[in-house]
Amino acid sequence: MRDFTADHRWLSINTATVRRQRGADWPLAEILDACAARGIRAVSPWRDQVAAAGLQATARQLRALDIALSGYCRGGMFSYADAAGREAARDDNRRALDEACTLGAPCLVLVVGGLPGALAGTPAHRDIAAARAQVSDGIAALLEDARERRMPLAIEPLHPMYAADRACINTLEQALDVCDALDPGRSGALGVAVDVYHVWWDPKLQAQIERAGARRLLALHVCDWLVPTTDLLNDRGMMGDGVIDLRRIRGWVESSGFTGCSEVEIFSTRWWRRDGGEVLDTCIERHRRCV
Amino acid sequence: MRDFTADHRWLSINTATVRRQRGADWPLAEILDACAARGIRAVSPWRDQVAAAGLQATARQLRALDIALSGYCRGGMFSYADAAGREAARDDNRRALDEACTLGAPCLVLVVGGLPGALAGTPAHRDIAAARAQVSDGIAALLEDARERRMPLAIEPLHPMYAADRACINTLEQALDVCDALDPGRSGALGVAVDVYHVWWDPKLQAQIERAGARRLLALHVCDWLVPTTDLLNDRGMMGDGVIDLRRIRGWVESSGFTGCSEVEIFSTRWWRRDGGEVLDTCIERHRRCV
Repeated sequence: MRDFTADHRWLSINTATVRRQRGADWPLAEILDACAARGIRAVSPWRDQVAAAGLQATARQLRALDIALSGYCRGGMFSYADAAGREAARDDNRRALDEACTLGAPCLVLVVGGLPGALAGTPAHRDIAAARAQVSDGIAALLEDARERRMPLAIEPLHPMYAADRACINTLEQALDVCDALDPGRSGALGVAVDVYHVWWDPKLQAQIERAGARRLLALHVCDWLVPTTDLLNDRGMMGDGVIDLRRIRGWVESSGFTGCSEVEIFSTRWWRRDGGEVLDTCIERHRRCV
Repeated sequence: MRDFTADHRWLSINTATVRRQRGADWPLAEILDACAARGIRAVSPWRDQVAAAGLQATARQLRALDIALSGYCRGGMFSYADAAGREAARDDNRRALDEACTLGAPCLVLVVGGLPGALAGTPAHRDIAAARAQVSDGIAALLEDARERRMPLAIEPLHPMYAADRACINTLEQALDVCDALDPGRSGALGVAVDVYHVWWDPKLQAQIERAGARRLLALHVCDWLVPTTDLLNDRGMMGDGVIDLRRIRGWVESSGFTGCSEVEIFSTRWWRRDGGEVLDTCIERHRRCV
């Protein structure tokens, strides 16, 4: 297992972690500069942040700062209420793939979508099995585009509390079943993103990480689960402040051959209130001490 | 599949649903009278409500009103930080068994506990595998007491969002693995409570309900999952207000041989603000229309 205590060469910052500071948006260009100033060598930006900063400008800045990507957030949202919705999702995901290529991402992370309309508060139906079938078909179609571009797709199973509105793939086992069905040859074009926040509770976690293996483990996201958790979306904890056994899970992931970055992804109104530079410093310190 | 539209003979009210009305506690004796007045033939009371009303007085009232129990809430909380904690849990669970016998419950529902201390905000450690081992040992020990009393134990898998602080058994598969380990002969002494709120998202739900079968399906709890859900604990929805396909899940449960009550269990600050009688009337109406 790699020693994270002495430096932070394997740390990546998911830029959602500092998308706001002191209650206001923090522009991506400034985030990248602040990361570079601290010797952070990798990030995972969100599409809306990249769009606001400009795709080409972001690609140039990343090259100039010698910052790599550990992933690109995010594609997905495959479920749909009608044919127009399906085509819009396909088109949008192709654009996400192209952006990921421009930025040199190692994978496009997929948050697959839940019941169509649910995220907007108006679910079209209650048939989660049907949504799951749409998701599987959507990944299958996108996989063709992804193979052409040599951009791996990383299915991110989301915590079951997001099954209705964000992602109906909710366990690593379920994500790997999709991988097995769509890429039985384990080509490397399709894998998973393991975010400890979503999967730490799973009694089958270790076994499924082993099942995934190096070819399918495309990303590792870290943060912590607070007790109590007071908001379903924006109350993630800083590493060390919660109950997730981060070192144990990283051990399983590395034993299975994963050698990529450990990416800090924290959605938290309380951390978004702080100074962004302080949050990055805390991420570095906690990553050394707790991950 | 039984027809619930014409009457509510199979409806049970978990008394937590109306433990408060108009913002104040509603005494159990009044709840039972209100249920009887509406032709509700079964309830599942909570231990603190029974203690406040008096155990013997509650047993007498239930007999006088000819109201049966669909379960007794709840035993469990097996994980512990030290030997004294283990013994305290064992003693408390024995008392719960005795109360369940006095009240004529068909089963004692088990919420098994999470990381020791987590519910109080001070988790003793991060080792959920260790907590799970304590839970399994605790159920094994209690099963002896339960067999003596001929009181079945119903393990209730709780939603993964409660894994840290309330229950580290989080899927039906995991609960049934414990049943298989501790009662391989399927004696009927150990089974599961299926609460749709906790398990609706599970891609393996149908298969695991079939695996459970009539001997292990001891209780069915219904409510709904709201989008958005704004509180992890007290924002359950009334049947029909959310995204759970209640009829489909009840179909699976009944196809597997379950013939018991459908128990409405809603923790909701918004419903606790209403008049309790109105809430009961709504439960009856929604149970006919949506379950």
